[in-house]
Amino acid sequence: MDVTEYMKSLGENARKASRAIARASTQDKNAALLAIAEAIREQRETLKAANQRDMQRGQDNGLDAALLDRLELTDDRIDTMIEGLQQVAALADPVGEITDLKYRPTGIQVGKMRVPLGVIGIIYESRPNVTIEAASLCLKSGNAAILRGGSEAIEANQALAACIEKGLAAAGLPAETVQVVETTDRAAVGELITMPEYVDVIVPRGGKGLIERISRDAKVTVIKHLDGICHVYIDQFADKTKAVNIAINAKTHRYGTCNTMETLLVHKAVAAEILPQLAEAYGEIGVELRGCEATREILADAVVATEEDWNTEYLAPILSIKLVDDMDQAIAHINHYGSHHTDSIISENYTLARRFLTEVDSSSVMINASTRFADGFEYGLGAEIGISTDKIHARGPVGLEGLTSQKYVVLGNGEVRV
Amino acid sequence: MDVTEYMKSLGENARKASRAIARASTQDKNAALLAIAEAIREQRETLKAANQRDMQRGQDNGLDAALLDRLELTDDRIDTMIEGLQQVAALADPVGEITDLKYRPTGIQVGKMRVPLGVIGIIYESRPNVTIEAASLCLKSGNAAILRGGSEAIEANQALAACIEKGLAAAGLPAETVQVVETTDRAAVGELITMPEYVDVIVPRGGKGLIERISRDAKVTVIKHLDGICHVYIDQFADKTKAVNIAINAKTHRYGTCNTMETLLVHKAVAAEILPQLAEAYGEIGVELRGCEATREILADAVVATEEDWNTEYLAPILSIKLVDDMDQAIAHINHYGSHHTDSIISENYTLARRFLTEVDSSSVMINASTRFADGFEYGLGAEIGISTDKIHARGPVGLEGLTSQKYVVLGNGEVRV
Repeated sequence: MDVTEYMKSLGENARKASRAIARASTQDKNAALLAIAEAIREQRETLKAANQRDMQRGQDNGLDAALLDRLELTDDRIDTMIEGLQQVAALADPVGEITDLKYRPTGIQVGKMRVPLGVIGIIYESRPNVTIEAASLCLKSGNAAILRGGSEAIEANQALAACIEKGLAAAGLPAETVQVVETTDRAAVGELITMPEYVDVIVPRGGKGLIERISRDAKVTVIKHLDGICHVYIDQFADKTKAVNIAINAKTHRYGTCNTMETLLVHKAVAAEILPQLAEAYGEIGVELRGCEATREILADAVVATEEDWNTEYLAPILSIKLVDDMDQAIAHINHYGSHHTDSIISENYTLARRFLTEVDSSSVMINASTRFADGFEYGLGAEIGISTDKIHARGPVGLEGLTSQKYVVLGNGEVRV
Repeated sequence: MDVTEYMKSLGENARKASRAIARASTQDKNAALLAIAEAIREQRETLKAANQRDMQRGQDNGLDAALLDRLELTDDRIDTMIEGLQQVAALADPVGEITDLKYRPTGIQVGKMRVPLGVIGIIYESRPNVTIEAASLCLKSGNAAILRGGSEAIEANQALAACIEKGLAAAGLPAETVQVVETTDRAAVGELITMPEYVDVIVPRGGKGLIERISRDAKVTVIKHLDGICHVYIDQFADKTKAVNIAINAKTHRYGTCNTMETLLVHKAVAAEILPQLAEAYGEIGVELRGCEATREILADAVVATEEDWNTEYLAPILSIKLVDDMDQAIAHINHYGSHHTDSIISENYTLARRFLTEVDSSSVMINASTRFADGFEYGLGAEIGISTDKIHARGPVGLEGLTSQKYVVLGNGEVRV
């Protein structure tokens, strides 16, 4: 079977399974999640052996150390997958939730019922644990899933697919509810994103290049963010302690995450007081500072920041710093150079903070908090399939609700239109 | 300027204006809406004269009577536009609404703020009043709009555009907030739907052919329904009076609307009792009945229904009738032949009614109510830009909320991630 036919058959299977999983009971879905966890526990050695074959092939092919690290299935990571399945089983079922049932003057009662989207395609790289994360969130939200992991993780992903199949069977749910693509042919991705008759949404997780290609070519909605160029703006009326704590945390808590601050904006009135203190702290941790001209008048050691710096997600211990004349200039900078991911103002001024919240066009906007909080778990969604910086369908961290839609329900007593 | 360049310039203008209108105050947006209403009142004779030129050209070009009727701007229709603007001004502003602000264990408070989508492209045919409906809903929801009406209504639409411009100017809002396409070149539509950098959503209103073409070729999300093949299912446990009233109303209240019933499904156990009574009522009103074999055993005069009938939106005094063995068969028929628009069960049985509500995969699902209620005004949305039978972003009647998205807001007190 060629790849087009193969992907089409996965699509047909998924569409069919999506009807069954959409109406599956919460009990059956949870039973499947816990049975998958049990299968992973039983198959731990098989999973590690499969992963070792992936690791060996990766080493032979010269994969870099960071990629090999992401690829590895350690005992800890297997435990985390098992816990993740248990956590998703414990989450409230979004499907069937009815809200806002209100009587209308005609006598009908109108509300909304939450329903699954249908079939979700997930495209990801290297980390095999994403197979379980994605499968559990799609399953719990009543969607069928087609999972396309990286070719470098194919053996572990197939071993995980077997655990998923076993769990679905134990709960009496269709095996095709979650299908893991078996071919490493890259054409499979092209097929998956251009089958609107079988796939309703695509969620890509991986590098910016992959996501850009998918967004450009997909024929269905893509839930995604390209990058995270996040800002902290220290306002003229900032509390200095909060400003320093947040600026340090937002940059240095983790360097490789999309909600890490990449550019610090500082009101010129407080720069001379606050920047030297910050520079000392960053220096101790080993963060390279790049600054605009005004910044460098205060921090002579800072590297010259170029136009490119404002556009860059470093994912590294590097920070660009720009002084601004007022909040309007800060907001203009964020809306122009930012990636609509997460931006935070540090200020005690009510009116300025309120304006920042309204006028910054990002999927998460914060007052006096670290950008590192932009995360499905921190927001209380219980889980996260990804983060969207778009405005259609979902914006910000996307949990179970983001994988559902709402239909209208009308409860009547024989009413007719007059 | 060629049409590509022209549409690109509209797109650039719209994107720029979208930033201003997104942060415009409720007061300014309402002032603009009321000023547009005032301009229409003042320009009534100019509008009618422009419309007369459209009507004359339409007659010369041999447009059919139904189209000419939709094209005409009568005094009544002008009054309705003025009232519509006043009603939209009176609606609550969805923009900036903050909901679900909850404290998390870390101390941060997380909620959602409603924000405009950006730029909405509306493509419609003949009825010039859509220009005002669409403009008012986009404006109130803080979006910029590019409106592309039918070439047959070009004079009236340009005259209405002048009123909109006047209203926006009176409120100090950018003229480019609402742009009405000036060219009748059909290539303008192709450009409008393939500029994701300038246009965020397309709402097509018109015939199925137009909407199919737009959905196929668009590079952005399209909020649409293709057709309305709506069903009423009279269950074994139906209250006979409710069943007859709703079946008559759903079919005959208006023939040309998308929420009109096109197929009636009847449980075989009650068909012999209920069908003759219904047939008599339909006969008096002049509705042609087409039936499955079992239906024709009861209603000998019914025309033979073919496979095509189950797939057809008649938009006419024609009704297809099918008997079913049980509700499962009714639901299977609806999910297979329906258009995911609106379907209603007539039943007094709690468990069956609840299952119907859950298992029918339509944007509106009803119990004991006429399908004719599926409408933004009837649902209390205050207005309607269209109806979506898709699941991404919006499902069912789409009002002001459907033209917005929600970003996350985080209110902190200096919190950092640990």
